[in-house]
Amino acid sequence: MSTKPHHAKAARGSAAPGSSAASGPNPEAGGAPALRGGRFTGGLDALMAEINASIGFDRRLYAQDIAASKAHCAMLARQGIISGEDGDAILEGLDKILREIESGAFAFETALEDIHMNIEARLTDLIGEAGGKLHTARSRNDQVVTDLKLWVRDALDTLDGEIKELQAALIDAAERHAGTVMPGFTHLQCAQPVTFGHHLLAYVEMAGRDRGRIIDCRTRLNESPLGAAALGGTSFAIDRDDTAKALGFDRPAANSIDAVSDRDFVIEFLGLAAIAAVHLSRLAEEFVLWSSAQFGFVTLSDAFTTGSSIMPQKRNPDAAELVRAKTGRIFGALIAVLTVMKGLPLAYGKDMQEDKEPVFDAADTLSLCIRAITGMVKDMEVHEDAMGAAAAKDFATATDLADWLVREAGLSFRKAHGAVGRLVKLAEDKGVDLAGLGLDEMRDIEPKIDQRALEVLTVERAVESRTSFGGTAPDNVRRAAKEARGRFL
Amino acid sequence: MSTKPHHAKAARGSAAPGSSAASGPNPEAGGAPALRGGRFTGGLDALMAEINASIGFDRRLYAQDIAASKAHCAMLARQGIISGEDGDAILEGLDKILREIESGAFAFETALEDIHMNIEARLTDLIGEAGGKLHTARSRNDQVVTDLKLWVRDALDTLDGEIKELQAALIDAAERHAGTVMPGFTHLQCAQPVTFGHHLLAYVEMAGRDRGRIIDCRTRLNESPLGAAALGGTSFAIDRDDTAKALGFDRPAANSIDAVSDRDFVIEFLGLAAIAAVHLSRLAEEFVLWSSAQFGFVTLSDAFTTGSSIMPQKRNPDAAELVRAKTGRIFGALIAVLTVMKGLPLAYGKDMQEDKEPVFDAADTLSLCIRAITGMVKDMEVHEDAMGAAAAKDFATATDLADWLVREAGLSFRKAHGAVGRLVKLAEDKGVDLAGLGLDEMRDIEPKIDQRALEVLTVERAVESRTSFGGTAPDNVRRAAKEARGRFL
Amino acid sequence: MSTKPHHAKAARGSAAPGSSAASGPNPEAGGAPALRGGRFTGGLDALMAEINASIGFDRRLYAQDIAASKAHCAMLARQGIISGEDGDAILEGLDKILREIESGAFAFETALEDIHMNIEARLTDLIGEAGGKLHTARSRNDQVVTDLKLWVRDALDTLDGEIKELQAALIDAAERHAGTVMPGFTHLQCAQPVTFGHHLLAYVEMAGRDRGRIIDCRTRLNESPLGAAALGGTSFAIDRDDTAKALGFDRPAANSIDAVSDRDFVIEFLGLAAIAAVHLSRLAEEFVLWSSAQFGFVTLSDAFTTGSSIMPQKRNPDAAELVRAKTGRIFGALIAVLTVMKGLPLAYGKDMQEDKEPVFDAADTLSLCIRAITGMVKDMEVHEDAMGAAAAKDFATATDLADWLVREAGLSFRKAHGAVGRLVKLAEDKGVDLAGLGLDEMRDIEPKIDQRALEVLTVERAVESRTSFGGTAPDNVRRAAKEARGRFL
Amino acid sequence: MSTKPHHAKAARGSAAPGSSAASGPNPEAGGAPALRGGRFTGGLDALMAEINASIGFDRRLYAQDIAASKAHCAMLARQGIISGEDGDAILEGLDKILREIESGAFAFETALEDIHMNIEARLTDLIGEAGGKLHTARSRNDQVVTDLKLWVRDALDTLDGEIKELQAALIDAAERHAGTVMPGFTHLQCAQPVTFGHHLLAYVEMAGRDRGRIIDCRTRLNESPLGAAALGGTSFAIDRDDTAKALGFDRPAANSIDAVSDRDFVIEFLGLAAIAAVHLSRLAEEFVLWSSAQFGFVTLSDAFTTGSSIMPQKRNPDAAELVRAKTGRIFGALIAVLTVMKGLPLAYGKDMQEDKEPVFDAADTLSLCIRAITGMVKDMEVHEDAMGAAAAKDFATATDLADWLVREAGLSFRKAHGAVGRLVKLAEDKGVDLAGLGLDEMRDIEPKIDQRALEVLTVERAVESRTSFGGTAPDNVRRAAKEARGRFL
Repeated sequence: MSTKPHHAKAARGSAAPGSSAASGPNPEAGGAPALRGGRFTGGLDALMAEINASIGFDRRLYAQDIAASKAHCAMLARQGIISGEDGDAILEGLDKILREIESGAFAFETALEDIHMNIEARLTDLIGEAGGKLHTARSRNDQVVTDLKLWVRDALDTLDGEIKELQAALIDAAERHAGTVMPGFTHLQCAQPVTFGHHLLAYVEMAGRDRGRIIDCRTRLNESPLGAAALGGTSFAIDRDDTAKALGFDRPAANSIDAVSDRDFVIEFLGLAAIAAVHLSRLAEEFVLWSSAQFGFVTLSDAFTTGSSIMPQKRNPDAAELVRAKTGRIFGALIAVLTVMKGLPLAYGKDMQEDKEPVFDAADTLSLCIRAITGMVKDMEVHEDAMGAAAAKDFATATDLADWLVREAGLSFRKAHGAVGRLVKLAEDKGVDLAGLGLDEMRDIEPKIDQRALEVLTVERAVESRTSFGGTAPDNVRRAAKEARGRFL
Repeated sequence: MSTKPHHAKAARGSAAPGSSAASGPNPEAGGAPALRGGRFTGGLDALMAEINASIGFDRRLYAQDIAASKAHCAMLARQGIISGEDGDAILEGLDKILREIESGAFAFETALEDIHMNIEARLTDLIGEAGGKLHTARSRNDQVVTDLKLWVRDALDTLDGEIKELQAALIDAAERHAGTVMPGFTHLQCAQPVTFGHHLLAYVEMAGRDRGRIIDCRTRLNESPLGAAALGGTSFAIDRDDTAKALGFDRPAANSIDAVSDRDFVIEFLGLAAIAAVHLSRLAEEFVLWSSAQFGFVTLSDAFTTGSSIMPQKRNPDAAELVRAKTGRIFGALIAVLTVMKGLPLAYGKDMQEDKEPVFDAADTLSLCIRAITGMVKDMEVHEDAMGAAAAKDFATATDLADWLVREAGLSFRKAHGAVGRLVKLAEDKGVDLAGLGLDEMRDIEPKIDQRALEVLTVERAVESRTSFGGTAPDNVRRAAKEARGRFL
Repeated sequence: MSTKPHHAKAARGSAAPGSSAASGPNPEAGGAPALRGGRFTGGLDALMAEINASIGFDRRLYAQDIAASKAHCAMLARQGIISGEDGDAILEGLDKILREIESGAFAFETALEDIHMNIEARLTDLIGEAGGKLHTARSRNDQVVTDLKLWVRDALDTLDGEIKELQAALIDAAERHAGTVMPGFTHLQCAQPVTFGHHLLAYVEMAGRDRGRIIDCRTRLNESPLGAAALGGTSFAIDRDDTAKALGFDRPAANSIDAVSDRDFVIEFLGLAAIAAVHLSRLAEEFVLWSSAQFGFVTLSDAFTTGSSIMPQKRNPDAAELVRAKTGRIFGALIAVLTVMKGLPLAYGKDMQEDKEPVFDAADTLSLCIRAITGMVKDMEVHEDAMGAAAAKDFATATDLADWLVREAGLSFRKAHGAVGRLVKLAEDKGVDLAGLGLDEMRDIEPKIDQRALEVLTVERAVESRTSFGGTAPDNVRRAAKEARGRFL
Repeated sequence: MSTKPHHAKAARGSAAPGSSAASGPNPEAGGAPALRGGRFTGGLDALMAEINASIGFDRRLYAQDIAASKAHCAMLARQGIISGEDGDAILEGLDKILREIESGAFAFETALEDIHMNIEARLTDLIGEAGGKLHTARSRNDQVVTDLKLWVRDALDTLDGEIKELQAALIDAAERHAGTVMPGFTHLQCAQPVTFGHHLLAYVEMAGRDRGRIIDCRTRLNESPLGAAALGGTSFAIDRDDTAKALGFDRPAANSIDAVSDRDFVIEFLGLAAIAAVHLSRLAEEFVLWSSAQFGFVTLSDAFTTGSSIMPQKRNPDAAELVRAKTGRIFGALIAVLTVMKGLPLAYGKDMQEDKEPVFDAADTLSLCIRAITGMVKDMEVHEDAMGAAAAKDFATATDLADWLVREAGLSFRKAHGAVGRLVKLAEDKGVDLAGLGLDEMRDIEPKIDQRALEVLTVERAVESRTSFGGTAPDNVRRAAKEARGRFL
C-alpha cells in the first residue's frame, strides 16, 4: 500500500510524454522538461529549477565544453562510430556556437539546465539530427569533469604566470633594497637587523613553492576522464588515447568509475590556493603595518589606497586589507568542497555540482589578490631612513657582540651571552645604547672586550656579517636575487 | 631619504584636486575619484576598482540603506541639526531613489564604489546641496553596519517563516503517519521499530531549535549602531534613541567603537545557518537512502527529481542531493567570515567588506534548501508496506522480549538480556525469527517465558508499548504532533 | 553464495560465547569482549580497540555519568521498576565509585571501552547483581548525550564566570583610563582621538554578547534526553520529568529520536566559543601591536611575556600571540563537528563519538585564553604619554574643525569638509599641523573660521566633545563603565 | 608618564638576576625562569606556564631534535667553530639522552618549556659547560622547524607505506571480484551494472593520487632550515650543505627569513591528509551502506564491528562510522593551521607553536583510519548473489539496448534512446523487465530490434561489453589490476 501525499502540488504543466521521451538526447538527462522521460507526469517545481539549474555559473565552461566535444566528435568519426559527414557537420556547428557565445549572440536557457545541454540543443537547431549523434559513447558525467579539468588547468596556468610576475616585482625590489637595513622582527619585536631585500626574497621563495604546487596539481589532474561515460565505460570502440591527446592530457584516466567520481583536482587546487592566499595575506598584513604612522616604513601608492577628503594624510590601505581578508573566502571555498565530497558514495552524485562556484570564485579571488599585491610591490615608496632608524634601536646588535665574544675571544656561547646580557642591562639603566657605553665600563663586565668589538655594534656591520648561505648580508642578497631570477623567471 | 619605485605606473588620470576635495561628502571616503582628497595625484588603478568596489553585491542593501538614511534625516531635522526644509527635500529625494531602484531605472555606477555613495550621489543630483547634509553626524562605518543589521534581521524573519512552513509540512505528515511502522535505525542497522510520524517529529524539534537560535540572534543584534559615526561618536546633538526606535531596534548600541567594529551578528547568523543546514542535510540524506531501490521507503515527486529518457524507473533525487551538498557552502561562508574577523584590530577595517557576500549567499542558499525540503516532504509518496516489512525483520523486537522478562517475570535486566541473546541465537541458527520458535524451545532457555510474552514480539505491539514521554507509541505521536502544532505553528 | 575473504585474520582470541552473551548488560553494547554477543566468534582487532575505545577521553564525563545514573536509579526505585533495596545499593555503589575516581584509585580499563561501561562494570563488582538493574529503561545512546549535555552546561557556567572576570578587569581599566587619550584607528590609520577607556569598553560589550550566547545555549540545551533509551523510548513506566528535574534540566526532550540524535548543543557551543575566541584574538592582536617598539602604548607584564638573556628590552608577547593563534583550534573544532554531523541519518551513529574531544579541547582552550587575556589586562602598564602623543599627530582633529564649521558657522557638511581638506593640504605643505596655521591663512580659505574654531583642534577637546550616547567623551566613558558594571558584574 | 596597573599581581618569586642572565643559553630564550634575562623581575604566571609550555606535546620531536643537534654539532666541529673534544662530548651526551628518553628514564620538566630546552639542559647536566656550545650559530627558530620537517617527513613515509598496503588489499580483492557483478550507482540509484573489482580499483586510483601528493609534499619540504638561526643567518662560518646532507635534506633553504617563517609543509601535509580522509570516508560510507540489511552486499568482520548481546544479528559498523567521522578532525586540523598562519607578519611568531598538535593528531588519525579500512577490506565477506540480484533489477541494461540500436541497427543515438524509453515504459506498465517483453511487442515500437538484441540485456553481457580503456569488463579489470600492481606495489 502506498499513501499518496495529501498536500501534493496542484496541476503542474505536464510535458507531452511521447515527444519528451523521444527528444531526450541524454540518458542521465536531467530536469529540463524536454529531457525528462515519459514516465514523468508532473512538471518541475519552480524551486527545482532554482536549485537544480547550473547554467547561471557553468556557462563559464563553454570553451572547454566545445573543445572537448570537438575532440570527442573527431574521434568518433575517426573510429567510424559516426560518419565523416556527420562529424564535419558537428564540428562546424560547434565552431559556430563558440562564435555565437563569444560574440554575445548565444541565448542561454535555464530550462536547458546546464552548459552541456544548452550547447547540444543549439547544435541540433543548427545541424539537425546529426547533432544527436555527438553524445554517442559519452555521458554528462564524463563530460562535466572533462570540462572542469580543462578549466582548472587553464586557471593553474594563468595563476602560475601571475605569480611569476609577482616574483619578478619582488626580485626587482629586492635588488634595489639589497642593502636597505630594516628591523628583523620576531614576535613583532625587533630581534636583529636584516635587509629589506632579504625580507622580500622570503616571499619569492613562498611564491616559488606555490608555483611548485601548481605544477604538481596540473600534472596530477592531467588524465582524461572522457570516455568513462556514465560510470562504467562504453561498448563503443572509442579511442580514449586519441581524445586525451587532442585535449592536451597526458593519458586517459585508468578507471572509469574513479574518473567520474573524482574531484581531487578541485580540492587540491583549492588547497594550493589557500596556501598562496596565506602568503599574500602575510605580505598584506605587513603592508598595513608598514604603512601605519607608527611604522612609517612604506607609503603605498595612490593606486592601491583610498583617502579622505578632510584627512589628506590618510591613505587607507584598502587593497592590502582586502587581500588579507579575501583569504577567508578561499578557506571557505576549500571547506565547502571538502564538505561536499566527504562520505559521498561512488559514482557521480548531484552533490558534485557544488564544485564549480567555489573553484571559480577562488580562482578569480586569488588572481585578483596576486595582481593587487604585485601592483603594491611595484608602486610602494620605501622609507629607508625610517627602516634604518628602527633597526638601530632596541639593542638589535646584542647578538653580534655575543657572537664576537665567542668567535674572537673564545668564550663559550653561554658565557658570552651572559656577559652581553649584563652589558645591555647596564646600558639600559644608563639610558644609552651599547655603543654608548665606554670601553672601560664594558671591560669591567667582560675584560676580553676590545676596540674591535665595538665595530660589530652597527647595524650595517651586523647585516654584512651574516654571510652564511641564505643569510641577510647585502652581497648574499644580491647573489640570491640573481639566483632567484634564474630559478624562477 | 625615500626611494621612489622604479616601476611606478605611468600617467594615470588625476582628479582635479580642488573640486574633488570640495566634492567629498564623506570623511572616511574612499577610492572613487570623486571622493578622494586633493592630496591624491594618481588615479585609481583598474585593479583597485576591481578589488575595492562593492556595488556589485552591496546593492542588495538598497532598501535598508534608504530606510536608515530616512530615519537619520528625520532625526537630524527634529534635533535642529538640519533645517526642516532640507529634511523634507532629503526624504522626498530618498523616496524617489527607492522607486527608481525598484523600477530598475537607477543607474548604479562602479566608480561610486558602493550602495551608500551611489544613493548619496543621486540624492545630490536630485535635490542639490541639501543632499550633502544627510551625511552630517554619521559615517559610512556606522551606516554600513546599520544597513547590514537590518538586512540580516529581515533574512532571519524570512527564514523563521520558511522553517515554520517546514514544520507545518512535517507535522502534517507526522499525523498522517503516526501509526506507520518503520525500522528505527542506529548505525544504519535496524535497532527497534518506530513510527514514521515519530521520526518526522524529530525534525520538527530540530527546526524548533533553529527558530530559537534565529530569535536569539535577532534579539542580540537588535541594537542600533547608527550614530556611532566613524568610531567615536559625534559632537552633534543627535538622538540615537530616536533613530533606533524608527528602525525597529530595541536600543542604541552602548559603545561606538564596538558598534562599528562588531560583526558578531554575521557570524552568529552563519553559525545558526550552518546548524540548520546540517539538519536539512540529514533529512536530505534520508531521502536519498529511502528513495533508493534498496530501501524503497519513499518515492520523491517528479517535482524534485530528475529522470532519464531511457531508464524511466530512475528518479534521481537531485534536489535532495543538492540540499545535502549545499551544506558545504554554508560551512564555507562561516569559515570565511570567522577568518576575516580573527585578529582584526579595532575599529573598522576594510577587511569587513568581506562580510556581505557570505551572508547573502548563505541566506539565499538556506532559504532555497528549506523550501526544497518542504516541497519534498509535502510531495513524498510513502510506501508503508515496505517500511513495515523492513521493521519486522532482524529481530527488531528482541529488546521488547527482554523488557517483558524484566517487567513481568522479575528477571534482572542483565539476566533477561542474556536469555534473549540465547533465544535469538537459536532462532538464527534455525533460520526463523523469534516468533518462529516454539514456546517449549523458549522455555528450555528461559522457563519464565509464557504465552503472553509472544505478544510483545510483533512490531505493532513494540511501538505501542513505548509510551514513555517522547516515545514512539502512535498515541504518543498523535499527542506530540498536536502539542508541536501548538508550540510552533 | 558468499566468498570468504582470502586474507582473513588468523586466530583471534574468541570470547566464550555463553558467558559473554550472559554478561552483556547493554543491548546496544559494543566492542569490549565482555559486551559482545555470543554470535561473535572473532575477537576484536587491536586496531578496533584503538579506533573504537573512548575511555581515553570520555573519562572526563565521570561526574556527569554518575550524577545521571543516580538520578535514573532514584527514579526507577520511586516508580517501583527496581526495588528500594536495589536502588539504595546502586546509589551507594555509585558514590563509592565517585570517590574512587576522584582519589585516583579507580582503574580505568580500555577493554571496557568507555566511561559508562567502566562505571557499570565496577558497580557490579561492588554490589553484585543489583548493578545489572541500573541500565533498565535506558541505553548508552541516551546516557552519553545526557552526560555530555551536563558537561557542556558546566563548561558554559565556568566560561560565563571567567568572561565576567574579564569584564571586571576591563571595566576597572576603563575607569582608570576614562580620560586617557589614544589614537582611534580605522584601517590601522589614525582617524580620530578616542579614550583608552572607551576602547576597552568595546571589549566589555563583545564579552557581554558572548555571555548572552552562553545563556541562550544553556537554555536551549537544557532539556533532558534521559529516558529516550536506544531511540524510541521505553515500555517501562519511567518518569522523565523526575530525572529531568533531579539533573537540573528544565524539561524532558520532547522526541526520543531527536534526543539521541541531537548534537546541536555541541555545535552551538563551538560556534559561540569561536566568536568569543575571535574577540580575544582581536585584543591579543592589539596587545602585540601596542607592545611593539613602533607603538609603545603598553608594556605587558613579566608574567605574560618571555624574554631573552641578551636582549633584555625584548619582551616577547608570547601569551598574546598564543591567544591569537589558538583561535585556529577552536575554528577547527567547530568545523570538525559540523563535518561529522553533516548528512548523518537518524538516529545514533558511532560518528557522534567524535563530538567529545573537540568540545573538551575548545572549552579548555577558550578558558585558558580568557584567563590569560584577563591577566594581561590586569597587569598591563599603560604609557599614556605615548598614546597621547600618537593621537595628536596626523591631523586627527580635522573632523572636529569641519563639524565646527557645520555647527557654528552654518556651512553645509559638504562645504565644510571641502574647506578643511584645503586647510589640511596647506598645513601639510608647510609642514605644520592645523594649529600651526595662522588664523589669517585659515580665513583665506574659509572666512567664517574664527578664534573659537582653534579650540576644537586639541585632542582633549576633540574627545570631550563626543558626548553622543556611546561616544568617547571621558564623562560618557565613566558613565558607561558604571552602567556596564551594573549590567554585567 | 606611565600608570602602573592597580591590580598588579602580588609577590611572585623573582629569579636571581645575575645567575639567570648568565645561565640563559638561548638568546630567543623563553619563559622558563632559568631562561629569562636579568631584567625580568616578576616570575611567570602559572597561567603563562599553562599556555606557553609545549613540552606536553613537542616531546614527540625528541628523536628529530637529537638527530638535528647531532648534525649541527658535527658540522660545528668540522668547521672549527667548536673543538673536536667538545663536539665528541656533545655527541655522546646526545646519544645518552636519546637512550634515556627511549627507555623512559628521562624526566621532562615543564619549567624548561619545550623539548629543545629539556634536551639542552640535560646535556649540560651530563657534560658540563661544553653543552652550552651546542647552540652556537643556531636558534630555537631554525631548530624547531627543522625538527618538525623531519617529523612530517617521517610521517609522510609511514603513511605512504600504509596507503600502499591499502592498495595491495584493494587490488587483491579486485582480482578476486573482477567478475562479480554489482549495481553501478549514480545518485544512489542503480544506473548500469559494473563489476565489484572495477569499483574497488577506483579506490586504488584515489590512493595512488594520495601517494603522489605525499611524494610531492616530501620533495618540496625537503630543504633544510638549519642555519637560518633566529631569522637572518649567522656570522659563524657554518656549512649548511653539510647539515642538510647529514639530515637527508636535498639542499639548504635559500632564504633564512623564509626558512623560519614557513609552515607551508604543515598545511600541505594537512591538505593531502584531508583529501586522503575524504577518500577513506567514501569507502567507509559504502561499507555502512553495503552492510545494512537493505543492501546486504557485504558483511564486515567481527574485528571491525560491534554487536549487541540481545540482537546478535546486529553488527554495528563502528569502525567504518569512525573512519567516516574522523574526516572531520582532519578538516579541523587543516582549518586550525590555515587560521594560525593567515596574516602573520614575518618572521617567527609564537603563534606558530600551534602547528604541532594538529599535525600530530592528523597524522595519527589518518594512519589509524587507513589501517582500519585496510583491515575491513581484507576481512570483508562479499555477498555476490545479493550484488548480482540488485544489479539485474531496475532496467539496468537499458543503455545497452540503446547502444545496440545505434551500433547494429544504425539508429541515431537520439532515436535509439527514444525507442528504448518507450520500451521500458511498456515493460514497467506490464510489470516485467525488458527481457520479459516479447520480440513482437518490441518490434511494434522499434522494428529493427531482432533476436540478437535480447542478448545484450543480461547484466553479464552488459559488463562484458564495456571494454573501452578503463571500462568495467571483467577482462579489463583483471588487466587493470595487474597494471595497478605494477604501478603501485
